[in-house]
Amino acid sequence: MSDAAEGSVGIVAAQRVVIDTPLLLDCGRSLSRHELMIETYGTLNAERSNAVLICHALSGDHHAAGFHEAADRKPGWWDNCIGPGKPIDTNRFFVVALNNLGGCRGSTGPSTVDPQSGKPYGPDFPLLTVRDWVRSQAMLADRLGIARWAAVVGGSLGGMQVMQWAIDLPERIANAIVIAAAPQLSAQNIAFNEIARQAILSDPEFHGGHFYDHGVVPSRGLMLARMIGHITYLSDAAMRAKFGNELKVAVPSFNFDIEFEVESYLRYQGQAFVDRFDANTYLLMTKALDYFDPARDFGDRLELAFARTRARFLVVAFSSDWRFSPARSREIVKALVDAGRDVSYAVVDSQLGHDDFLMPIPQYHAVLRNYLLRVSDEVGATIGVPA
Amino acid sequence: MSDAAEGSVGIVAAQRVVIDTPLLLDCGRSLSRHELMIETYGTLNAERSNAVLICHALSGDHHAAGFHEAADRKPGWWDNCIGPGKPIDTNRFFVVALNNLGGCRGSTGPSTVDPQSGKPYGPDFPLLTVRDWVRSQAMLADRLGIARWAAVVGGSLGGMQVMQWAIDLPERIANAIVIAAAPQLSAQNIAFNEIARQAILSDPEFHGGHFYDHGVVPSRGLMLARMIGHITYLSDAAMRAKFGNELKVAVPSFNFDIEFEVESYLRYQGQAFVDRFDANTYLLMTKALDYFDPARDFGDRLELAFARTRARFLVVAFSSDWRFSPARSREIVKALVDAGRDVSYAVVDSQLGHDDFLMPIPQYHAVLRNYLLRVSDEVGATIGVPA
Repeated sequence: MSDAAEGSVGIVAAQRVVIDTPLLLDCGRSLSRHELMIETYGTLNAERSNAVLICHALSGDHHAAGFHEAADRKPGWWDNCIGPGKPIDTNRFFVVALNNLGGCRGSTGPSTVDPQSGKPYGPDFPLLTVRDWVRSQAMLADRLGIARWAAVVGGSLGGMQVMQWAIDLPERIANAIVIAAAPQLSAQNIAFNEIARQAILSDPEFHGGHFYDHGVVPSRGLMLARMIGHITYLSDAAMRAKFGNELKVAVPSFNFDIEFEVESYLRYQGQAFVDRFDANTYLLMTKALDYFDPARDFGDRLELAFARTRARFLVVAFSSDWRFSPARSREIVKALVDAGRDVSYAVVDSQLGHDDFLMPIPQYHAVLRNYLLRVSDEVGATIGVPA
Repeated sequence: MSDAAEGSVGIVAAQRVVIDTPLLLDCGRSLSRHELMIETYGTLNAERSNAVLICHALSGDHHAAGFHEAADRKPGWWDNCIGPGKPIDTNRFFVVALNNLGGCRGSTGPSTVDPQSGKPYGPDFPLLTVRDWVRSQAMLADRLGIARWAAVVGGSLGGMQVMQWAIDLPERIANAIVIAAAPQLSAQNIAFNEIARQAILSDPEFHGGHFYDHGVVPSRGLMLARMIGHITYLSDAAMRAKFGNELKVAVPSFNFDIEFEVESYLRYQGQAFVDRFDANTYLLMTKALDYFDPARDFGDRLELAFARTRARFLVVAFSSDWRFSPARSREIVKALVDAGRDVSYAVVDSQLGHDDFLMPIPQYHAVLRNYLLRVSDEVGATIGVPA
């Protein structure tokens, strides 16, 4: 369990999976086929019982661990948690990460060329729900020959997919690990998303979502959207500790140049995001967040939604998270308890805010590790040298 | 003290005050003259000792109480607090409200025509600091023959002006009433302001601030800026109570139309703001907020800044305010105590958030009323029928 025992999954290659089965979506439309980019780490055991699905958050993708090339500066987005000897231990589990349908990292989404028109789908790509993602991920599981996940794991929007898995396909998920999530967005959460959307939609270079045809991207709007998001990912205290509120310059410039460290940080984050993310996918992701409300079909009684579940739950919240605070996780836990389900709950002492779900906080990783060791024992996961 | 005893100041008329004294600004530039729009309520007593200055917040102006015409739908922005028998009692005090320099309601500001060029100043109007406003307001006091304010009162950015008055002109302010303020912005506060500014600056219709010449306004950017501000004015709980997170429509529309109540509210607020506010003034106001830091000239020791003050202080915070939380007000109070100053402090139980400083919360108004009754007694304020 020491750091010395932890390793990297090393060089990994993404795979493209074509799903030919028609997918009926919540919006009423259907996709006759779709493609998903995935990565897998570790080895599926003979019983096919040790598979773990990683669901990503708003801007995540299938590259969750390891490196694509030896020269890569950064590993996958959850490399600190996934690997040999790590909390999601690839010596024990066969880990599957995907880029969700609607994404912009290779899976079918708004920036994909529509075979019918020969142009990117753009705004004609259907808006999706968390339920749609679960349906798509279930088709992926079928393709991989995984009848039942040992665990489905996700933080933030990823945690919402985990809950929906447990509700919609109770026989196909043994353990649901829901991290830094909420049972539905608050009005404030929706407000932040709406402003981000308006920033994109009102950018003249958005062109109603057909910006691909104009050879431009709505960079101003997408940059603003990302900056707004970043405020909600960090706690007030973390921003203070990280940036202070001191001027970067000795005397005020009395213009709108960058003067404060936090301005510099936000502009950098916003600009970097424009270079790697699609505006239509951003809109789609925020809308999926807003729509998520598994209790809606059960008379707004979350415990009735959870009464259908069969998984054991681990719910993890972070003390400094104000986007999806521990109070929101307690709503999930209370509904699970009311539904008579088996649930463990941990609140991790943290500083950074919502982004802590991506951080290697020892208490957090210990909670995941210990929970998953029990899962590993129960499903007879492979222990030893990966293939 | 019952509601029945409270009245309106009735129909009021704004006055234009021309300040011919050159005003040297913190940025190094100076204005040879400037004009301020003001309103006054109540009567200045013979000793000229009962004057109260109202400092406005980011989007406020000189119309603080009463009506301009009998047909007005809404009174001034703080009408619930200013009037005969109200907490800021116009039977006792001569109340002065102004539109700050740099504003857009008639006082000299970016939308004013520069006599030299014959065109609006636009981005050539100097950026201002809270200290500049205090200097301008002191010139106004000179013009009105007010050597010393019985009290200077303000919420949010207004409260910052109050603190600066007490520090910069200690002999001219008897009581400093600082409401829902902070001793400096946090990194998170600055981040919100920066995103609002970027929304305006990146709007193609901003035209580098010269939008007046193009017959347009940067409505998209200003609307986004206001929407971002609104999130910080309301508590998460208040937004939940006010809007819930229920869909306005029976089934999701799967497009970007308004679907949630909070979206409808934000778009309405944003649109209404575009019709009444100037984008350059908005930029200027947010920058003044970011620059405010009275401790900067005192080695970041706020207690040394406050050691110069002679006023008695009343500091009021609101429990649900997360923009300038009670913790920020406590920083002010602690520094005042450390400086050996006379300070009263009240935290008002509230629900709405930062906007509560504008609300007629009984506990809040009782605190103001009782404090100001003592002030009234001490300065020998007129009691009885106003002129």
